[in-house]
Amino acid sequence: MSQGFSLAIDGMGGDNAPEMVVDGLELAAERHPQARFLLVGDEARLGALLARRRRAAAACALRHAPDVISSEMKPTTALRQGRQSSMRIAIDAVAAGEAAGVVSAGNTGALMALAKIVIKTMPEIDRPALAAIAPSARGDVVMLDLGANVQCDSRNLVEFAVMGDSFARAVLGLTAPSIGLLNVGSEELKGDDRVRAAAEVLRESHIGPQFHGFVEGHDIAAGTVDVVVTDGFTGNVALKTGEGALRLMRDLLRQVFTSTIPARVGYLLARPALDRLREWMDPRRYNGAILIGLNGVVVKSHGGTDPLGFAHAVDVAMDMVTHRFNDRIRDGLARLAGPEHPRAVSAAPVVATSPR
Amino acid sequence: MSQGFSLAIDGMGGDNAPEMVVDGLELAAERHPQARFLLVGDEARLGALLARRRRAAAACALRHAPDVISSEMKPTTALRQGRQSSMRIAIDAVAAGEAAGVVSAGNTGALMALAKIVIKTMPEIDRPALAAIAPSARGDVVMLDLGANVQCDSRNLVEFAVMGDSFARAVLGLTAPSIGLLNVGSEELKGDDRVRAAAEVLRESHIGPQFHGFVEGHDIAAGTVDVVVTDGFTGNVALKTGEGALRLMRDLLRQVFTSTIPARVGYLLARPALDRLREWMDPRRYNGAILIGLNGVVVKSHGGTDPLGFAHAVDVAMDMVTHRFNDRIRDGLARLAGPEHPRAVSAAPVVATSPR
Repeated sequence: MSQGFSLAIDGMGGDNAPEMVVDGLELAAERHPQARFLLVGDEARLGALLARRRRAAAACALRHAPDVISSEMKPTTALRQGRQSSMRIAIDAVAAGEAAGVVSAGNTGALMALAKIVIKTMPEIDRPALAAIAPSARGDVVMLDLGANVQCDSRNLVEFAVMGDSFARAVLGLTAPSIGLLNVGSEELKGDDRVRAAAEVLRESHIGPQFHGFVEGHDIAAGTVDVVVTDGFTGNVALKTGEGALRLMRDLLRQVFTSTIPARVGYLLARPALDRLREWMDPRRYNGAILIGLNGVVVKSHGGTDPLGFAHAVDVAMDMVTHRFNDRIRDGLARLAGPEHPRAVSAAPVVATSPR
Repeated sequence: MSQGFSLAIDGMGGDNAPEMVVDGLELAAERHPQARFLLVGDEARLGALLARRRRAAAACALRHAPDVISSEMKPTTALRQGRQSSMRIAIDAVAAGEAAGVVSAGNTGALMALAKIVIKTMPEIDRPALAAIAPSARGDVVMLDLGANVQCDSRNLVEFAVMGDSFARAVLGLTAPSIGLLNVGSEELKGDDRVRAAAEVLRESHIGPQFHGFVEGHDIAAGTVDVVVTDGFTGNVALKTGEGALRLMRDLLRQVFTSTIPARVGYLLARPALDRLREWMDPRRYNGAILIGLNGVVVKSHGGTDPLGFAHAVDVAMDMVTHRFNDRIRDGLARLAGPEHPRAVSAAPVVATSPR
């Protein structure tokens, strides 16, 4: 790539920053020996941490930022007052072409607003979307939008499908990912005008052969398709509802396995097998929400994650950079272009929201 | 009650009807010794089944219906061609004042369409909603709408809150159920105009003290509130996503506990405790989606349920009849009336959809 750095890293974002970030970069540097990171934040603190992390120190260049955007700061405040913050300076490095992407565990709303304004939306795209990977019975599933746009028209949904296709190819390594449009029933007549219009365009498009049609809520965990496309309101609620159901089940199982002596013994016997299940569902494996559709790679790590989770968010960003994710999106959208691509069905104003 | 029958029962609806229905009524008759059921369907088949079910036979009167609405029939076809069907004749009995409500395990779309047209929406209500009960970490939660209206305005959401309040009082027996409005964030500025407008009306209304504000997807399983209010598109997707996540977890646990010999032994030891968990999450305990806002009680049992699940759907309908559910809704809506109850924010056409 032409940029000097693979990624700019917000060194100060996240509940346990900057220690968690530097420890995460130590893991990431081992996994990606060619990667070069621009680490942005309090130079003295970051320098001291790097002094005891050999691999991270070798992979990183430091850039000082005197300020930090707090997790409570409103996006509008972050825009006005955050010019000297670690998040903003990391984003500026992407806009200036110094780095191909940015990873931050900081304030989601601020990251989305700053990235949109500074890095800017790709000219081919109407609105960027927030995507993530979720576990399913048949492997990983890409979901989008997860809250960048609470109201979407049919054109947005079509663009999300094209972006989700490129994302699944770049990050999951699939050659022809199947794509489903989330709806209240799988029959063609179900749902509202918006999803029906989007389905019609997708069926006729170059990704038509990959388009599975409508899917329902239970198809997400079942892994019926590789990419689940929906508006940001529904996607955000669905993702959090599924996470909540899994958390409830985990809590109840913990109660079950501590409720009686035989159950405790049973747990110890089944533990190796249960541990594999726990590992498979580990939220750190799914850390990293991606704002796609911008002129650069933007990955949001969960604020409360640990070094392993942060390293996973860096993995996702590196996959996107290495596989020239944005070029793929551009190609996909160019193939969509034409009079049959409707400008809008029931357009509505965009409202940026944080994904979790 | 003034009607001759507590409930009219569609004897022929459901995958395993009429056997499953009659066996379910045998259980229901034991639980509700005062109940009188009007059982509608093929008189010869139902009569033969009742001959070997003493309690059901004592509680039921038979009414012949020569036709059955199939699970594939479109609602419009059911309306035109289903006049002699068991579902329609059972619904007619409610409209005629012979029964206070109807229970059917048949075609959901047809049941919703026929009930709306024949039993009719309460004059105080703009649109009926589909509600159900889901398990949570803190007890049962009422959710609505689950797919009766894929697009809703703020007035609909407010009415759903009032109906959900009455439902939670009648069926869950709560004295002041807490109510949450599903959104993409719990902050007041989050979400779209619709949910913000509905929240404003609810805060100022007579149920204001019970109104918790916005809740997110993970709050459903956490049991943050007793009643979760949302539009039919989001509610349908959320319910099915949560069910799908729990099903995935159950399947994975089954794999875990059969994967190794120690895991099998561990399962046997923990089994009594695991069985209590399974019983608590038993989908049959949550069988029964309720179309509320009509001039009568309408309960849809899952089509694939067994006698125990059908009996539970009858329980829900009996609770609503016994606790004069519709009178409570009327009272609630009367207290809402006034110029501050907005007629609409971003109204959209109603599209009936099946809940699952």
